[in-house]
This record gives sequence, C-alpha cells and structure tokens, in this order.
Amino acid sequence: MSPERVYIFDTSLRDGQQVPGCKLRKEQKIAIAEQLDVFGVDVIEAGFPISSPGDFDAVQAVAGIVKNATVCGLSRAVANDIEVAAAAVKNAVRPRIHTGIGTSDSHIRFKLNSTREDIIERAIAAVKLAKSYVEDVEFYAEDAGRTDNEFLARVCEAAIKAGATVLNIPDTTGYCLPHEYGDKIAYLREHVAGIHKAILSTHCHNDLGMATANSIAGIENGARQIECTINGIGERAGNTALEEVVMIIRQRLNHRYYTNVQTPMLKNLSQLVADTMGMPVQANKAIVGANAFAHSSGIHQDGVIKHRETYEIIDPADVGVDHSSIVLTARSGRAALAYRFKELGYHLRKDELDVAYQHFLVLADQQKEVVDNDLEILFNEKIFILI
Amino acid sequence: MSPERVYIFDTSLRDGQQVPGCKLRKEQKIAIAEQLDVFGVDVIEAGFPISSPGDFDAVQAVAGIVKNATVCGLSRAVANDIEVAAAAVKNAVRPRIHTGIGTSDSHIRFKLNSTREDIIERAIAAVKLAKSYVEDVEFYAEDAGRTDNEFLARVCEAAIKAGATVLNIPDTTGYCLPHEYGDKIAYLREHVAGIHKAILSTHCHNDLGMATANSIAGIENGARQIECTINGIGERAGNTALEEVVMIIRQRLNHRYYTNVQTPMLKNLSQLVADTMGMPVQANKAIVGANAFAHSSGIHQDGVIKHRETYEIIDPADVGVDHSSIVLTARSGRAALAYRFKELGYHLRKDELDVAYQHFLVLADQQKEVVDNDLEILFNEKIFILI
Repeated sequence: MSPERVYIFDTSLRDGQQVPGCKLRKEQKIAIAEQLDVFGVDVIEAGFPISSPGDFDAVQAVAGIVKNATVCGLSRAVANDIEVAAAAVKNAVRPRIHTGIGTSDSHIRFKLNSTREDIIERAIAAVKLAKSYVEDVEFYAEDAGRTDNEFLARVCEAAIKAGATVLNIPDTTGYCLPHEYGDKIAYLREHVAGIHKAILSTHCHNDLGMATANSIAGIENGARQIECTINGIGERAGNTALEEVVMIIRQRLNHRYYTNVQTPMLKNLSQLVADTMGMPVQANKAIVGANAFAHSSGIHQDGVIKHRETYEIIDPADVGVDHSSIVLTARSGRAALAYRFKELGYHLRKDELDVAYQHFLVLADQQKEVVDNDLEILFNEKIFILI
Repeated sequence: MSPERVYIFDTSLRDGQQVPGCKLRKEQKIAIAEQLDVFGVDVIEAGFPISSPGDFDAVQAVAGIVKNATVCGLSRAVANDIEVAAAAVKNAVRPRIHTGIGTSDSHIRFKLNSTREDIIERAIAAVKLAKSYVEDVEFYAEDAGRTDNEFLARVCEAAIKAGATVLNIPDTTGYCLPHEYGDKIAYLREHVAGIHKAILSTHCHNDLGMATANSIAGIENGARQIECTINGIGERAGNTALEEVVMIIRQRLNHRYYTNVQTPMLKNLSQLVADTMGMPVQANKAIVGANAFAHSSGIHQDGVIKHRETYEIIDPADVGVDHSSIVLTARSGRAALAYRFKELGYHLRKDELDVAYQHFLVLADQQKEVVDNDLEILFNEKIFILI
C-alpha cells in the first residue's frame, strides 16, 4: 500500500499568535505566510478576522499573496464572525472558513450557558452560513478532548450533513493522553455517518507535554490533517510543534504516511518565527533547538565521530542544520579532542594527545566550554615543546 | 487497588549537565541537590565521577549532603569507572552505582567494535564489580530503544543474575514512538526471568518530541522509575521533563500511580535550574513556561473568568504559580477588559465599557500588550469624561 498524505495545517499566525506579546503586524504575517507557502504547508490559518480591524487586514493581505496553500480564517459560530471571515479570505486562491463551537459539558454549561440540542443547532447554522460563502468549511468542536464521544459524534454528523469538509477535534485544554485521543478519533471514524466525506483533523495543546504524541495517535487512528505551529508556539504551553510531527512522519512512519513540506527549510522557518514573534526557542527544543544536534559528552562524541548514526536519528541537513557539533567540555574524551585539533589542522601523535588531554581537562574544569582559540593556545604553549 | 509508587530519578546534574555551556561548579550542584532532596525525588544522579576531577569532587560533595534521596554516580562498564564512582558515592546515606554498556547492533559494531556475547560478559562483570561496593546497582543497556528485544532480554536477565536492582532501558537517541517503547517494556516484563527482583526504569530522549509520552507508555507497561530532568534539559533535545511526567501522573493517572514529589516546588526548581545552568525555558514550555497559565485570546479569557476549568486542567497553585494571567491584547474581549479594570478598582458601567473597549482595540492593534498603566490612562482620558 502506498503511503497516505497527511495535510499540514499551520496555525502559527492564528493560534501561535494568540500569545501575550506575540501579535504580528500585517507585514510580518505576510513575510511568514510567504515562507510557509514555499515550505509546502497545505493550509495557512492566517488569523481571526472578527477579533480586531488589524487582524482582518492581515488575513485579507495573506489571502491575497499566498499562491498554493489554502488560506483559512477563524470564526465563532456567530453570523457576524463568519461573514467577516468570509470577507477576509474572499480573494484567496483556496479560501477556507474555520468555524465551530464548544461541545464539552464544561463549555456548554459554564461558557455558553446553553444545552446540547442548542449547540447542534448553532453548529449546523454556522456551517451552512460559511458554506454559502466558500466550498471548503472546517468545523471545530471546541474542547472535544473533554467532550463525551457519543455527543461529539452527533455534532460531527450534523456538521458533515451541513456541508463541513474538515472536522477539527481539538484537545483545547491539553488534557488527553495519546491512547485517549487516538481512541476518540477511532470512535468518530466508526460512529459518524458520512465520515468519509470529511477529513478528520487533530488540534492538540501541550499543557501536559503530550501534543505531539496525541497528534500522531490521531493520525494512526484515522485523522489526516494536523494543526500545528512552528516551534510549538501558541496559547499557554502552545500547540503541537510542526517540526516534530513532520519529522516523526518522515523518519519513522514514511512507509505509511507523507507530508508535502520541504523539511530542509525547518531551521530557517523556526528562526524566522522566533525572531518575528520575539519568542526564543529553548536550546533543548527538539529538531530546531540550538543544541538539537550538539554533542558534549565524551561517550556520545566518540560514538558520533566513529559513526554519526550511533547517536543521531536525523541527518541535520534534513532539517536545514549544517552539521552536528562536537562541543568540547569537561565531558569530552580524547577522541573529541583529537577530532577538533584535526579540524584546526593539528594532527597530534598519541603522546602529544595524552599531554594535551591532561591540560585540556584542567582547562575544561575551569570553563564551561573549550573553544578553538583555547586549543590554539594549548597547542602552542603545551604541546609544541614536545616536538 | 491502591495506586502504585513511581520512583523519580532526577538526572539534571548528570545528563542535564551534559550540555554545551551547562557545566556546574560544585557549589551549584550542591545547591540544586539540596532542593531536589526537599522536593522529594527518589534518586539524584549527581554526575559521572570518572569524567573529570571536578565532577568527582561534586558527586562526592552531593553524596555528603543529601539526606533522603539515593545518590547515584554514572560509570561505563569499565573497572576504573566503577571504582571511581564507588569512591564518589561512598558517603551517601543511600549510595547507588549506575553502570552499563551499549546493546544495540549499531553501538556494538560501530562504537564498541565488539560482539553480543562479549557485551553480556562485560555487563555481568560490571554489575558484579559495582555490587562489591554497594547494594543498589542500576544497569543501563545503552541505546536499548534500538536494541533487538530478544537480545535486550538476555542482557537484562544476566544483569539481574549479577545483582542489578534497577534496569534502565534508555531510548538513548530519542528514536522510539510510544507504542514501541511501551511494547519493549512489556516484552521485558514477560520474557526476563527474575524480572520481579528489579525495577524497570525509563530513560527517554526528546529528539522527536516523544520523551514524555514514551516515559508514560513505559510506566503503563510495567516500568516503575522515570529518569528525567528539570525543564527537560540534557544532551541534544534533552531528556524527559520531570515536571511533565509528575503532573501527568498527578492529574490524569492518580487512581493508578503516585510519586513522592512536592509539586508546588516545581516553578521555583525550574527557575533555579534555568538560572544556574544558563538555560532559559521557552515561554510556551509545558507546566513551567512563563505563558503556561497565561490567557490572551478573548474566547479563552472569557471562559477562564467565568470558570477556571474551562481552559485550565491544572490549578496553577499546584505547580507553584500564583495565579492564571489574563493578558490584554487585541485578542481580548469585553469581559477580560472589565475584569482587569475591576482588578484596578474601576467598576465600569456597560456604556463605559463599550467606549473603553473601542479605545482599547485601537491601542491593542498598535502595541503587543496593554498593561495596567495603559488602562489607567485610558480610563482617565476617555472614560472619565462620561461620568
């Protein structure tokens, strides 16, 4: 069986921007959207047009410049929201309206002060209204992660009947564990009449550190779209990190699935989003962190020098990183020291290396990292006399 | 059935420190170890004593001051490593030696240039030697994540026979998906003779963003110790984040498992480790990131103001965070604005709020966040004239 396509829905410009201090100006959204389009994401959620006049303008501008991806605008299940979203995405090559409503008991009772029957009515009305503007309508069942599956299936069925082309099953609060989220998707695949007419989409939050695992569990149980953000940015602990799910699919699940993105752009995209939003990525972030391909322990350095795959499951070039780094610290062994000396043009004999290593360890205990300049000094002051 | 204890093995001071630029001085290791001990972790891996004289001193110092936790030192399956580790942890109340060897074909062939039979012999010799110094010996099968299960079971069986009390099954390269890692633990539970004499331990790396999910999958399949670090620091993309696994167990699995840690210390511990190591945590980090309990979208703010649990699955106080933040941005709605005005002592009438909200939106489109001072000015300049 040939691998199946998984659609990548990037919401860096909507959910990712929904963060204290991260609001982007129109020009910034355009710059990121252009790169996302070249990168090959399938859908760009550009904003929430009703939320402010500035965001409306930005979504409209993104819709006007994106050439390949679908451009999507968010709305609540409210007529005015949907009309404004429709106006914002109108000029897109492939416009989509994303609309929906809370379906968990907590949301229905405390936030919406409503009933289950009313929620279904409002969902149907929202999808129908959106459908009058665009062919491609995505419906979200907010807080689906904590929604009773039987009711969720009824809502999804109604949304499909009303014309929804994509069903988004958000774990809004980051509550689910992978088997729970996977089971939910499997339940919907089995119990929603007409489910083959729509694409099921994951939308996971990372409050418990499970967003990536939940998204993959969703795919393995029948979802075919992942909503995610560059660097996993987003409200609270953020969304599923795009770079993680695409690399899992590429490295571990490529016999079953594929995506359309150009992974060698990942590192630069990560940098662009971090810089533009003022949201630095921590050094130990998977795939795109500064240390993701850095080795500092002696055991690991030795292994990587002998054979890269001993400690690396991804070729750095595949995500746009030049090469693995061998960083010299007090944890480094003789092999790493010899390797770095060699890179500087010094080929040490064994007796020279023994001497150098003793001096190196003293130095490394004093400072966090030993850099090229330290090695030059060490070589000239301590080794040269041996020759 | 009453919940079962899951042991927390903190390796912030060993694997966490094994990072470019993160080397700690002895006093720094002591300061962190003291806090980890009060926090209630079961094991503190204090360092890798053979790696440098400075690290030996630091492990010895930590062993001397920790009152409750087991203090552990790392070693390779090499006599000198084990002897030095034994000397370093000798004065601990509860000393443990952690020793082991690579078991995957990649490690055996490329790194160790050895054979499977030889690896088993070396594992047995290492455990026996360690056992001659301390009762509590943990054995690691490096790169277990990529090791053939049948061979891994043989290694584990040999290690238990030689006296190992804990079996560490590291996914050294961050390669596994949760079902694979869980299946591996389940396989060992079923196929290793004498497995009930030892505790199975998870040790996962986050190269694909799966460390937390893999650790939990390990627990659900029979492991009872999790090796992890504060903030998920560590080599490359880091280790399993301690704060994530303990909060998953506390919030979602507390009917089946518990740990001994005092979760309200999490936020301060995270800050201590980040500051001491010079490794800032990104704002969207689960549990301990600056934004983990911050709400900026209008929809979410409205929900949280009405009922905290609408969008939060963890009470911030349970991890040592004062309160959720309602951050005012262009995404905020009337309810959030009224809420923040109220906190400042201004109780706006509906007509006042309408006027204030229009001015607020203009301001919020211009700047990323609207702070208290902006609200004071807005109130005095725009609303006051209404009264």
